[in-house]
Amino acid sequence: MIKRNSDMTTDIKVEMRGGNGQAVIRNVFDKGEYKGASRLVATITLEPGCSIGAHVHENEEEIFYIIKGTATYNDNGKTEILNAGDSCVCLSGQEHSIANDSNNETLEIFAVILTY
Amino acid sequence: MIKRNSDMTTDIKVEMRGGNGQAVIRNVFDKGEYKGASRLVATITLEPGCSIGAHVHENEEEIFYIIKGTATYNDNGKTEILNAGDSCVCLSGQEHSIANDSNNETLEIFAVILTY
Repeated sequence: MIKRNSDMTTDIKVEMRGGNGQAVIRNVFDKGEYKGASRLVATITLEPGCSIGAHVHENEEEIFYIIKGTATYNDNGKTEILNAGDSCVCLSGQEHSIANDSNNETLEIFAVILTY
Repeated sequence: MIKRNSDMTTDIKVEMRGGNGQAVIRNVFDKGEYKGASRLVATITLEPGCSIGAHVHENEEEIFYIIKGTATYNDNGKTEILNAGDSCVCLSGQEHSIANDSNNETLEIFAVILTY
């Protein structure tokens, strides 16, 4: 099954998880289009100044892969800078948050949430 | 957990699944670094003229997301062109293949295999 970018659904989350601005979630596939144990397969775009606030994942894990831009990433309490090509995983019981602190560069992430 | 691009492992598959040239698989995470039911979370790079031959997935499904470049994609017998931002899924029992038929543009894919 092919899914064209123009056919993907978009969720705009304002101040997501207590973050700033908005997160634009483009659903690469919607639940029901695949069968595996995952509740999100999407790209997430954060424009400069936007962020997703700190939150814990329980009974699931989230993988981020940085497609483009630079992220300020809180990895369970430790903050680091991620560049394009870097990745991170927030395992069950861990906390993370992510921000685009750049002045003029879009941050684009590929995100997968694996459920148990 | 953060995984730097420089710390990711690479598998170079020559004539993968009967394809041409080589597929460069950069493992975003290795099995054991996450717990969900997936056996591959990786980027796949195909240089011009390279391809992965036709193969069937059984008891698993593979999602491709085109990060950059243009792909000639065989979706269970039907061939279409995929551009950056497009995606596809090969469900269990289905067949697919993918080729970079461009003259000078690298094809980069994000790939996830969900197992059942």
